[in-house]
Amino acid sequence: MEYFPKVKDKIPFEGKESKNPLAFKYYNPEQLVDGKTMEEHLCFSVAFWHTFKSDGKDPFGDPAFNRPWMQSKTGMERAEHTLNAAFEFAAKLGVPFYCFHDRDIAPEGENFSESCNNLELMVKKAAALQSETGIQLLWGTANLFGNPRYAHGAATNPDAHVFAYAAAQVRHAIAATQELGGANYVFWGGREGYETLLNTDMQHEEEQMARFFHMAVEYARSIGFEGQFLIEPKPKEPTKHQYDFDAATVLGFLRRYDLLDHFKLNIEANHATLAGHSFEHDLTVAAINGKLGSIDANVGDPLLGWDTDQFPSDPLSSARAMLVVLKNGGLGNGGLNFDAKPRRGSCDEMDLFYAHICGMDTFARGLLSAQKIIDDGILDDFVKRRYASYETGIGRKILTGKTSFESLEKYILENGEPDPKSGRQEMLEGMLGSYIV
Amino acid sequence: MEYFPKVKDKIPFEGKESKNPLAFKYYNPEQLVDGKTMEEHLCFSVAFWHTFKSDGKDPFGDPAFNRPWMQSKTGMERAEHTLNAAFEFAAKLGVPFYCFHDRDIAPEGENFSESCNNLELMVKKAAALQSETGIQLLWGTANLFGNPRYAHGAATNPDAHVFAYAAAQVRHAIAATQELGGANYVFWGGREGYETLLNTDMQHEEEQMARFFHMAVEYARSIGFEGQFLIEPKPKEPTKHQYDFDAATVLGFLRRYDLLDHFKLNIEANHATLAGHSFEHDLTVAAINGKLGSIDANVGDPLLGWDTDQFPSDPLSSARAMLVVLKNGGLGNGGLNFDAKPRRGSCDEMDLFYAHICGMDTFARGLLSAQKIIDDGILDDFVKRRYASYETGIGRKILTGKTSFESLEKYILENGEPDPKSGRQEMLEGMLGSYIV
Amino acid sequence: MEYFPKVKDKIPFEGKESKNPLAFKYYNPEQLVDGKTMEEHLCFSVAFWHTFKSDGKDPFGDPAFNRPWMQSKTGMERAEHTLNAAFEFAAKLGVPFYCFHDRDIAPEGENFSESCNNLELMVKKAAALQSETGIQLLWGTANLFGNPRYAHGAATNPDAHVFAYAAAQVRHAIAATQELGGANYVFWGGREGYETLLNTDMQHEEEQMARFFHMAVEYARSIGFEGQFLIEPKPKEPTKHQYDFDAATVLGFLRRYDLLDHFKLNIEANHATLAGHSFEHDLTVAAINGKLGSIDANVGDPLLGWDTDQFPSDPLSSARAMLVVLKNGGLGNGGLNFDAKPRRGSCDEMDLFYAHICGMDTFARGLLSAQKIIDDGILDDFVKRRYASYETGIGRKILTGKTSFESLEKYILENGEPDPKSGRQEMLEGMLGSYIV
Amino acid sequence: MEYFPKVKDKIPFEGKESKNPLAFKYYNPEQLVDGKTMEEHLCFSVAFWHTFKSDGKDPFGDPAFNRPWMQSKTGMERAEHTLNAAFEFAAKLGVPFYCFHDRDIAPEGENFSESCNNLELMVKKAAALQSETGIQLLWGTANLFGNPRYAHGAATNPDAHVFAYAAAQVRHAIAATQELGGANYVFWGGREGYETLLNTDMQHEEEQMARFFHMAVEYARSIGFEGQFLIEPKPKEPTKHQYDFDAATVLGFLRRYDLLDHFKLNIEANHATLAGHSFEHDLTVAAINGKLGSIDANVGDPLLGWDTDQFPSDPLSSARAMLVVLKNGGLGNGGLNFDAKPRRGSCDEMDLFYAHICGMDTFARGLLSAQKIIDDGILDDFVKRRYASYETGIGRKILTGKTSFESLEKYILENGEPDPKSGRQEMLEGMLGSYIV
Repeated sequence: MEYFPKVKDKIPFEGKESKNPLAFKYYNPEQLVDGKTMEEHLCFSVAFWHTFKSDGKDPFGDPAFNRPWMQSKTGMERAEHTLNAAFEFAAKLGVPFYCFHDRDIAPEGENFSESCNNLELMVKKAAALQSETGIQLLWGTANLFGNPRYAHGAATNPDAHVFAYAAAQVRHAIAATQELGGANYVFWGGREGYETLLNTDMQHEEEQMARFFHMAVEYARSIGFEGQFLIEPKPKEPTKHQYDFDAATVLGFLRRYDLLDHFKLNIEANHATLAGHSFEHDLTVAAINGKLGSIDANVGDPLLGWDTDQFPSDPLSSARAMLVVLKNGGLGNGGLNFDAKPRRGSCDEMDLFYAHICGMDTFARGLLSAQKIIDDGILDDFVKRRYASYETGIGRKILTGKTSFESLEKYILENGEPDPKSGRQEMLEGMLGSYIV
Repeated sequence: MEYFPKVKDKIPFEGKESKNPLAFKYYNPEQLVDGKTMEEHLCFSVAFWHTFKSDGKDPFGDPAFNRPWMQSKTGMERAEHTLNAAFEFAAKLGVPFYCFHDRDIAPEGENFSESCNNLELMVKKAAALQSETGIQLLWGTANLFGNPRYAHGAATNPDAHVFAYAAAQVRHAIAATQELGGANYVFWGGREGYETLLNTDMQHEEEQMARFFHMAVEYARSIGFEGQFLIEPKPKEPTKHQYDFDAATVLGFLRRYDLLDHFKLNIEANHATLAGHSFEHDLTVAAINGKLGSIDANVGDPLLGWDTDQFPSDPLSSARAMLVVLKNGGLGNGGLNFDAKPRRGSCDEMDLFYAHICGMDTFARGLLSAQKIIDDGILDDFVKRRYASYETGIGRKILTGKTSFESLEKYILENGEPDPKSGRQEMLEGMLGSYIV
Repeated sequence: MEYFPKVKDKIPFEGKESKNPLAFKYYNPEQLVDGKTMEEHLCFSVAFWHTFKSDGKDPFGDPAFNRPWMQSKTGMERAEHTLNAAFEFAAKLGVPFYCFHDRDIAPEGENFSESCNNLELMVKKAAALQSETGIQLLWGTANLFGNPRYAHGAATNPDAHVFAYAAAQVRHAIAATQELGGANYVFWGGREGYETLLNTDMQHEEEQMARFFHMAVEYARSIGFEGQFLIEPKPKEPTKHQYDFDAATVLGFLRRYDLLDHFKLNIEANHATLAGHSFEHDLTVAAINGKLGSIDANVGDPLLGWDTDQFPSDPLSSARAMLVVLKNGGLGNGGLNFDAKPRRGSCDEMDLFYAHICGMDTFARGLLSAQKIIDDGILDDFVKRRYASYETGIGRKILTGKTSFESLEKYILENGEPDPKSGRQEMLEGMLGSYIV
Repeated sequence: MEYFPKVKDKIPFEGKESKNPLAFKYYNPEQLVDGKTMEEHLCFSVAFWHTFKSDGKDPFGDPAFNRPWMQSKTGMERAEHTLNAAFEFAAKLGVPFYCFHDRDIAPEGENFSESCNNLELMVKKAAALQSETGIQLLWGTANLFGNPRYAHGAATNPDAHVFAYAAAQVRHAIAATQELGGANYVFWGGREGYETLLNTDMQHEEEQMARFFHMAVEYARSIGFEGQFLIEPKPKEPTKHQYDFDAATVLGFLRRYDLLDHFKLNIEANHATLAGHSFEHDLTVAAINGKLGSIDANVGDPLLGWDTDQFPSDPLSSARAMLVVLKNGGLGNGGLNFDAKPRRGSCDEMDLFYAHICGMDTFARGLLSAQKIIDDGILDDFVKRRYASYETGIGRKILTGKTSFESLEKYILENGEPDPKSGRQEMLEGMLGSYIV
């Protein structure tokens, strides 16, 4: 069965003057950028949950998407159609990766064992499709937030029975990820937080969470899983407050509980902005700690207070993000996963193509613009010169621990007031704009 | 005296490949766009208060800008230097307009009469500089928010004595605007609001405000002032809540108090976003009511909750705004005033040039992109087709008042369920991006 | 069948020292406050959708509430159980009113006629239960946002066919409200707005909406419906932007389209705060326009950006709200409807009692505190004195249209600077706190 | 000279029925609460900068407070009057502590040496007033944000010369704090952040900041300073982004740079809410890390996006905060400092009394309510029971490291699904409200 019959062939690259909504204007997978292909730089991934499982429901509205792959009677039949549709879509779109939660690809059964069996069956089918198409798993994860058993948290649930359930579930999700050669395994703690402090022992819950992560590390080691563990920060929603608030909070937690060596971060644009940071801020915090693992490439609406998970369409924003990525030397095991969904009104399957093409072109444009900035070197030189006073003299001494408050006072008594210097923000913003291809 | 000696000549247009931070990459004033020059389309204006009077103070910091024109001992000497600097800057930058508050160009005196005399003296000097340079006044206004007498409002002050003072002051500000041939007169009610409802009679204050505006209309008529009156909405800051919250609120107020014929709106980007609207939303609300008068072209930081008044640098946003302007048939008497200031750290006079060049290029780029969208016609056709069902049949009857709930129920009983239709948001966003020049 | 067997009798009033979570501490329905009973002042209403239909689903989670009344196989059987549960709950809780959407009490059928039949059947049953229990309908409304046919709006849909469907549906909802003696009929335009301006003709949509309201007025007149029409403002969610943004926007719309005589407002606390206003602000805006019709008494989380619809528990906030209500002379036809839901983790039926008791006590406390403030008169006297300058002299002349800018300038030349006066905000805030019972 | 002649004697406690705005209704310093006096529990402090130095300026308005102590010609004369006024105010109000920045109590001189001399002179006078009145220094700090030399940061300035200047200045501020017996020394990094990432090397700046703190620790040790070092988190304002974003971020930073042993946190209510957290959240984060050092007891406006620094007036919020403090065993060296200012319209000296009385009563009420909650024990018992499953059986094994993913899966296979449990949020919120005295 063909699920997207209107798209006959792989989406072509036609260049920026094309008006064809089913062609790339900027994303040319084979094009070399500083010695790597665009495909290698960007490692695009399609998100199983939004693209294939989303039904257009929202808090005020019923399902609105009537997908051909969702028509069968049983959950497992629907799961198989959905998986087939996913690989057909990814192949036609030309993305090299996909990501999933365990419950995205296989429905929950009557009991835990049946859920595990369902998962195992679907993993076998996914493995076959992967080797057939060459499409790979960027990361797997477990859905520990949808089922009401997790209403008060998974690892942080006040009921140890639920903790145990989550552990058992994650065991299988990691195993599935390993079986499919997943490059990473992600933890997003959608219910690891609280609704009200009135019923919450925060310290207890943090310790539970740390225990959970330590067991995950031990389990991964025991089975020889070599993918990278990632934590995905988000400040709130669905809970009032999530413990993995932002990159800095997660890094502090990992340090406190001696987990830093085993985890990197999966930074999502919309989660960063919900936490009060720009996308590039949280990317930078991860990068300067050596922990930028992967990216959920979406965008929120700055005037809305929830996770809108929209497809990126702003080349200025993607250029700012790709600057951090390029300076980080790329994303290692990671990639750009479109954790994004078409609006509920975009109810047609073709909108999935339009949306991903928009997102891929936007990031391709960001890559080209960022590389141009780096090649020109003007911005980097400006920043380097701005901190030059720390490369010699008193600055060098400060950074190398050879000064004290007393010696620095002496310096001031001898040298007086520093000169004012402009930070040239507006000049730099103007320059940045002029690099957007 | 030359205040900007580092800029010898008028800022040139050098085209998009130029790396010269003192040249325009997109703004070419003489270039024709759909039959009008860029200069005529954009009517750029420099804001006297930010560009020449701002000293870099912020709520946590002392003045940081040490301008050559602010060095004299007396207020009137400083005022004269500042005015000269303003015209030198505008001429070198190549903007055709400027805007001011009465107290920007002339200092407050010991008493009301002295303040009026100061203003009158400076207006004479400004008139001379206008005719010397050809630079014109886009709009004048009165500062009814800085002096502590207005702490509880001007027209909405609980003390009638303050109301009277504001009336007297505005009388002179309108007269000054007329004398200088100002195309518009703006009311921004920075203190017309409240700090707490506990001490406020909102209905009383709204009636005061309406009385004030009626007197302004009568005064303008009496002196033959033919400029356009504009109200500038802002939701908050400095007060907790301002009555002119947004475009829709102001229009409702004007309707309630029979003032609609005499006013249009001056929409500011950063004020719109503080009110929870996009810039283009408030432009559209003004436009569909026939009330889009002029624009304060700045931008806020979507992650900060105050009026940052930054220079625009995002070509996508300026394209969205210019689409509304072009479809409005332009701005009539109005223009694009840079109600924007360099950051406190951009402490050098040259930053004023960099900042305005960035803003002007950004809007020139927005104009070019918007015109390209209109020329192609694809977006407009899409929207037209989307509403086509109202041009004939039942839709036409609905709009022309020929249906009732009963007749429409009959229609449904005969015609059943409507078909789902995609709104194609992502496709349109992708298209919009591809038009950015 | 008894749905709440753990609650044997009507919830009693036990006074503020009670520790019984199933007793009122402040709400004593028979207690007289300024000549009216608490029940008459507060007119509490339970919201059918949240209290009986909510299943604990959220954007990241599956249904979590396993209600005894939701166990039957067919929609109509479930509807009947739900209706019975609702009246049992309302009677045990002791609320005099309830509110519903058409689709809350009767499921949508296979086609429009079947939906209408379902509704008519359930209305008959509701009528019987109303007369059995004495519980009355505060307001009815139509759900024009849940079904995907309304994804792009109901009255504002670009497809006239959908407009017609909405009209037909509202016809029956108004008739049902009339049949049940509903005191009001509410319009909440959850999808009357836009997702992106790129595909939207705002002017066209506003005109459609005005046409729709005019037809509603005509229809009501034709059937002799004497309830009050109410519009409920909300700024966003589910759409990016709703046309009924806030009280001021709706009033402006009603004025523009000559609808002002036929509508009042239903103000919701959480909607007001999402629009950037305090609850008491939007209540006041409605009140000073003579348009405060009814209240949705809930609360949002000031740190979350979506409609959390929580039960009120802050006596300071309810006192501020009740001050506006008491000064408005009460709510006329309206009441305090708990448009609020227990958190997803409060998954037990008993939580419905705890939550409503909390909300009712909070507003009873607010009523008592507000009445105490009014009885003492200190706050009102302060405000009256603050505006006293408008009762005589120049202030009186200003308000009665006997001044001009010229005559006010003359006043200033004679009287000089006004004296500074403190607004005493902190003193008033301290006083307000001290009135909280 | 007497600066507050209208207040003859110390503000008395008159009890909750008093209508005297110059009397306490709840704060009775000698009253015992669980074995300690209210004064000992609350350790109120007045903030030198807001209360005595604030002039009512705001970003849109000129100074509005015409204080008797600000009338002298020279800075040092004004400083002496201000200091005298401060001690008179604190004594009449009855607060045991005050806090200051170096530049609050002594003006900046022509050069660094003169600034140090000014400070030293004023410290001598403060010491005398302290011993005369018994009022003590809660904490001292240095103003590293007001002077334009710090526009791009102090410790994080790209110019090493500025770093040195900050070091020299802090040396003297710590020494002054020691000389006055200050119980704590606070670092608030108002300019330690960035305006744009385009000109910023975040990693470089963080390392600079760590070096600065290490030198501070070394200096304190060298002079035998035994007060507690505190860092005060704030997410933004004046800069776009501050490195000390919130409690979790600061703790992560201290861990990364091996500074954890030497610092605690000074949590400010308004800073917490600007970071997207409730006040009690950030208090709790500090407390569970053993780092709750002191509190800036103010409140923001949840609908405004800047630091409004208002006096607290909500007894529900202060009860939530005092619950954390009481469970923390108090604040150790710390106290409740009113980092709050009357609104600009509260321009009269008497407003300083009204405002502090409101704040002190609000926190006294919070203390009494929180103690009542603890004495009753119902809330604490609820929370303890909620986590009881971790005290025995599988839960105990989880926390003590005796489980693995495998053993937990075995547990699930044997025990199946956990039972749903209500979190009882609404019941708890209702209970909390009922404890407010």
